[in-house]
Amino acid sequence: MITSESNTQVKEAVKLQKSAKERKKQKLFVAEGQKLVKEAALYGKLQKVYIAESAWKKGIEEPSLLECGYEVIADRVFASMSGTVTPQGVLGLVQMPSYGLGTILGNPKKSILLLDNLRDPGNLGTIMRTAEGAGMSGIILSRESVDLFNPKVVRSTMGAIFRMPFYYAEDLAETIETLKQNRIPVYGTMMQGSIVYDVPDYKKGAGIVIGNEASGISETVAAHLTQTIYIPMEGNLESLNAAISAAILMYEIARQKRMD
Amino acid sequence: MITSESNTQVKEAVKLQKSAKERKKQKLFVAEGQKLVKEAALYGKLQKVYIAESAWKKGIEEPSLLECGYEVIADRVFASMSGTVTPQGVLGLVQMPSYGLGTILGNPKKSILLLDNLRDPGNLGTIMRTAEGAGMSGIILSRESVDLFNPKVVRSTMGAIFRMPFYYAEDLAETIETLKQNRIPVYGTMMQGSIVYDVPDYKKGAGIVIGNEASGISETVAAHLTQTIYIPMEGNLESLNAAISAAILMYEIARQKRMD
Repeated sequence: MITSESNTQVKEAVKLQKSAKERKKQKLFVAEGQKLVKEAALYGKLQKVYIAESAWKKGIEEPSLLECGYEVIADRVFASMSGTVTPQGVLGLVQMPSYGLGTILGNPKKSILLLDNLRDPGNLGTIMRTAEGAGMSGIILSRESVDLFNPKVVRSTMGAIFRMPFYYAEDLAETIETLKQNRIPVYGTMMQGSIVYDVPDYKKGAGIVIGNEASGISETVAAHLTQTIYIPMEGNLESLNAAISAAILMYEIARQKRMD
Repeated sequence: MITSESNTQVKEAVKLQKSAKERKKQKLFVAEGQKLVKEAALYGKLQKVYIAESAWKKGIEEPSLLECGYEVIADRVFASMSGTVTPQGVLGLVQMPSYGLGTILGNPKKSILLLDNLRDPGNLGTIMRTAEGAGMSGIILSRESVDLFNPKVVRSTMGAIFRMPFYYAEDLAETIETLKQNRIPVYGTMMQGSIVYDVPDYKKGAGIVIGNEASGISETVAAHLTQTIYIPMEGNLESLNAAISAAILMYEIARQKRMD
């Protein structure tokens, strides 16, 4: 049993929790909780499991968690490794999945979500979860968007992180041009959009851009859109939450495709 | 300037932040941040304002914040009054709005969201914000749902808390019967719902029930529904987030009404 916070493995896990740079370098991230770690095992991405002493004593019901090597950790030390206030007692180091743009473009559904500088981890996780439910082909993120492997993002994807293809675009405007060359029109949600979001025909494929929580879609990206759209709002609101806007749009695409 | 945490006003504000019971007793709640406090003033509900010393020195641009009486508070003491990690320096005590069921039923839109034991404050706040945008008549909550005046709910409503009528139902099943007597059919989202959510005709009015984050709609409530509906999900997800499900449904109602 590991009983010291200065243990090398403990220090490594803490680094992976805290630093996006470290995660990128090692191509590893941390998943917390039995459910999520089990999903990682299921997708063959689990590298190592850490179990808090108290959770270990209660017994691990899921044998797949123990297949790839594990360590039991004193509760106090485990708490320092965990990214949550009330640790669930199981933490896994997981290999990052990686996809090319081709994986997303090659999917016959051709329904793609693009995120222009999205910053809130909870929003990104919820968006990825909803994207899986809505049956999107994949998510394309601008470089400066929040890291998908941030522990809070990972948790709020509820496992979608292991299944939804994603791609960080070096230059989002250029990637939009690539989509258009592939006959995928790209729409962007803006307060001052030109048509209501349910007017375009999404059945043959569509890209939908969601902008930054505070400033929306950047001018550079806006210049490359096929058309700007908006979600009608009653009352005196300034805006809808970014994950909510994304959900309304992704489920409008799914609704149109069901009608086909 | 108030410089002590044992000052009566400081202690009162802390109580209102922490205790739903105290809020109910005093019919007061706490709003944080200039934007939200300004909205409270706009709706004539602001009772008292507390300003952190550093924010006071920078200057309060919004004169409406100072009209009803204010106190400047030492930063250290203000931090103990604030419900956030990075306090914005302005905090208001606000009178609770209160509505009868008649206000919601009397609205000609007849689009009503019902929440059966919803527990997450962030979800409730986001749902209220989205409900305003979608143009709902009001929100009905089961008694055991999270308190609408919980500081985290208040923050995430982005001001909708001052504008959306709401009503805590003593017995949600009974309230559903009242809706049905008023010719408002009531649909509930369940994993095993009988029809896809976009099949019913919502144009003449509808109630939509969203259940608890973990356990969904209770059996008692389910027994009173006009019909159960579901949101199709691809992939391997167990469920969508409750605020996301609510948004998809409320915006489907809005979409159908626009087509009318």
